[in-house]
Amino acid sequence: MSRVDFLAARLEGLLPIGGGPDGTTRLPWTAEDEAAGRWFREQAAAAGLRVERDPAGNLWAVPDAPPPWWALGSHLDTVRQGGSYDGALGVAAAFEVAAGARVPVAVISFADEEGARFNTPTFGSRALSGSLDPSVLARLDVDGVSLADAMRSAGVDPAGLAAGSEWLSRLRGFVELHVDQTPELEQARRPVGIVRRLVARLRLRADLSGRAGHSGTTPPTERRDALAAAARLIVAAQDLVPEPPLVATASRIEVEPNALTTVPARARVWLDARAPEPEAVRSWRARLERVASEIADRTEVAITLSVESENAGSEFDPGLRERLTRLSGELGEPAREVECYAGHDAGVLAARVPAAMVLVRNPSGVSHSPEEAVDLEAAAFGVELLRRLVEEVAE
Amino acid sequence: MSRVDFLAARLEGLLPIGGGPDGTTRLPWTAEDEAAGRWFREQAAAAGLRVERDPAGNLWAVPDAPPPWWALGSHLDTVRQGGSYDGALGVAAAFEVAAGARVPVAVISFADEEGARFNTPTFGSRALSGSLDPSVLARLDVDGVSLADAMRSAGVDPAGLAAGSEWLSRLRGFVELHVDQTPELEQARRPVGIVRRLVARLRLRADLSGRAGHSGTTPPTERRDALAAAARLIVAAQDLVPEPPLVATASRIEVEPNALTTVPARARVWLDARAPEPEAVRSWRARLERVASEIADRTEVAITLSVESENAGSEFDPGLRERLTRLSGELGEPAREVECYAGHDAGVLAARVPAAMVLVRNPSGVSHSPEEAVDLEAAAFGVELLRRLVEEVAE
Repeated sequence: MSRVDFLAARLEGLLPIGGGPDGTTRLPWTAEDEAAGRWFREQAAAAGLRVERDPAGNLWAVPDAPPPWWALGSHLDTVRQGGSYDGALGVAAAFEVAAGARVPVAVISFADEEGARFNTPTFGSRALSGSLDPSVLARLDVDGVSLADAMRSAGVDPAGLAAGSEWLSRLRGFVELHVDQTPELEQARRPVGIVRRLVARLRLRADLSGRAGHSGTTPPTERRDALAAAARLIVAAQDLVPEPPLVATASRIEVEPNALTTVPARARVWLDARAPEPEAVRSWRARLERVASEIADRTEVAITLSVESENAGSEFDPGLRERLTRLSGELGEPAREVECYAGHDAGVLAARVPAAMVLVRNPSGVSHSPEEAVDLEAAAFGVELLRRLVEEVAE
Repeated sequence: MSRVDFLAARLEGLLPIGGGPDGTTRLPWTAEDEAAGRWFREQAAAAGLRVERDPAGNLWAVPDAPPPWWALGSHLDTVRQGGSYDGALGVAAAFEVAAGARVPVAVISFADEEGARFNTPTFGSRALSGSLDPSVLARLDVDGVSLADAMRSAGVDPAGLAAGSEWLSRLRGFVELHVDQTPELEQARRPVGIVRRLVARLRLRADLSGRAGHSGTTPPTERRDALAAAARLIVAAQDLVPEPPLVATASRIEVEPNALTTVPARARVWLDARAPEPEAVRSWRARLERVASEIADRTEVAITLSVESENAGSEFDPGLRERLTRLSGELGEPAREVECYAGHDAGVLAARVPAAMVLVRNPSGVSHSPEEAVDLEAAAFGVELLRRLVEEVAE
């Protein structure tokens, strides 16, 4: 069996969990998440690793050797209707490396990386690195279940969360392998990319408050149409972006009452901007605030913009990047250094321990979508690269 | 007790049904609808009228005299989070007239006037006038319940629907009193308006199909953002309207997956345009089709526009309008003739029997909103006007 087959065999038991024709949905603290945890335990047992769960609900598969260890891993949760490999590939690759490496290696699956249920991305790695605001425990999912209750129902006591960072001392460093979420490696025909940094990110929520009225009979001068104002704001958020590398997205909208014959009274829009330079994000935000104020003046719909999350970005360990570049060349494929526009657990941990991230070629060029794909030969190359890296650094 | 108190007393038992701090929600074929039906039966009994339900579920309170009768009425269903008086006022006023008139008068409460549950506005009056497409019985509500099943659960056999128009021969004519849905009468300080016609209306559904992708990592050139394209279409739909009297509204939007970190793959937007002249609506639609095609070309998001409903408008009976104008003057308030931008049961019936519509002053100037209000003195004036009208025409 080749390395390619090994990875496919590892993933075979995981991919059906939460999978379907519309993509994969494995939200945190659910039955699907628990089923993925059982897969994690099977993988650990086969690799001779012992499973522990830390206070944040992160799953650790640890070797017999005393800590601290080098760890590899990623996450097993997904967005709604996401792809098969985002997160999953990194955990499978970590077990493949741990099973084959000549040094002790731990495997971690971080809890709730996507934040798709409670808007709490990189929950587990934030808890581990001591940068999680515990007030998020009160957040509610779409069914009105609090994060604290969801954790409890999954057998994790939320009261222990504050102690989550005590486990950080068990880590010497962390390396995450992840499917490329862009067409960049596919277009460049490279198996892997070595991530220089995670770019700066900002998530804003726009709350628009107008007034309901009959969609036919309300005269134009009396309309306070929250959706019409929201549409202008979304167009502005896009048009304020003159060029890459700043990207802006309105990803989610909620409208009330969202009825066929009523002028919309309220709208909420989530806006997301990302750029390598934090200054680009700050400037976009300042310009958007001005445009929002102009739209509010013109439409008489009140608009408030509030920051839901903000991150100046993080740079990965230069020493690890240098080793990865050299090892990649030794394996016959010159490395490509890339910028990453997504949040990742490795990026959170990079603030506290040496960390690195390797992306693997994705023929579809997309993720967070059922179309997401992976080049399994490239993934096997990534596994070999990570094995050589941990064997070097763990000595 | 003055006329004003009489109307308030009649409404007292009805307004709490489905009412709450966020407005009134009495969807058709529900427990709230049934409770409103009980109120109808009480009102009928007190006025000495006999209640019958026609095959479309319309409630009739009929006098002892042989048909055909002149009938007054409106509807008891509401939109979601609507106002207290839209429909309800017209039914209460009808009972007030029927109880006081010297001639036999029937009262009708039409089923599902708003169409808020199955997108089937003026369901009951269409069935009565023979203009209802029975294929709507297969439509589903948000919980996946079909209209046919909803009718059955409310004790109405949908198989009988085709026979609904046989009841039309019982009607000599129909007059509807309704709360003004604009600030027009309030601003003009007139108690009532006599409706000349219902304007032309068009409801389009735009289906936008893009491609999901990670909201951070998908490069700008790879994005097929359905919400971004929808926002441009909504802005265009507004900006194509150079002046009143054409009004356009995007009242409802659905986005998938509507997740915080995913570029929206699909969006649906409902667009509504209304104008006194059908030609204005046709021209708006043609221009919107061109803009949609331009947006689709530029964004690579596929856009299709389909007609959900279309109505060239209807004019009310000139003889009845003339009588109402004269009677209004005799009562000391010169009549104001108004255009109506909403659909109404009286407008549907106007194609088959003599029909008229009287609007009553609304201090808030809005409807389909919890803020909707009514001037009860103006409503009492409207009741007196209708009483005099039916006493004239029924002789």
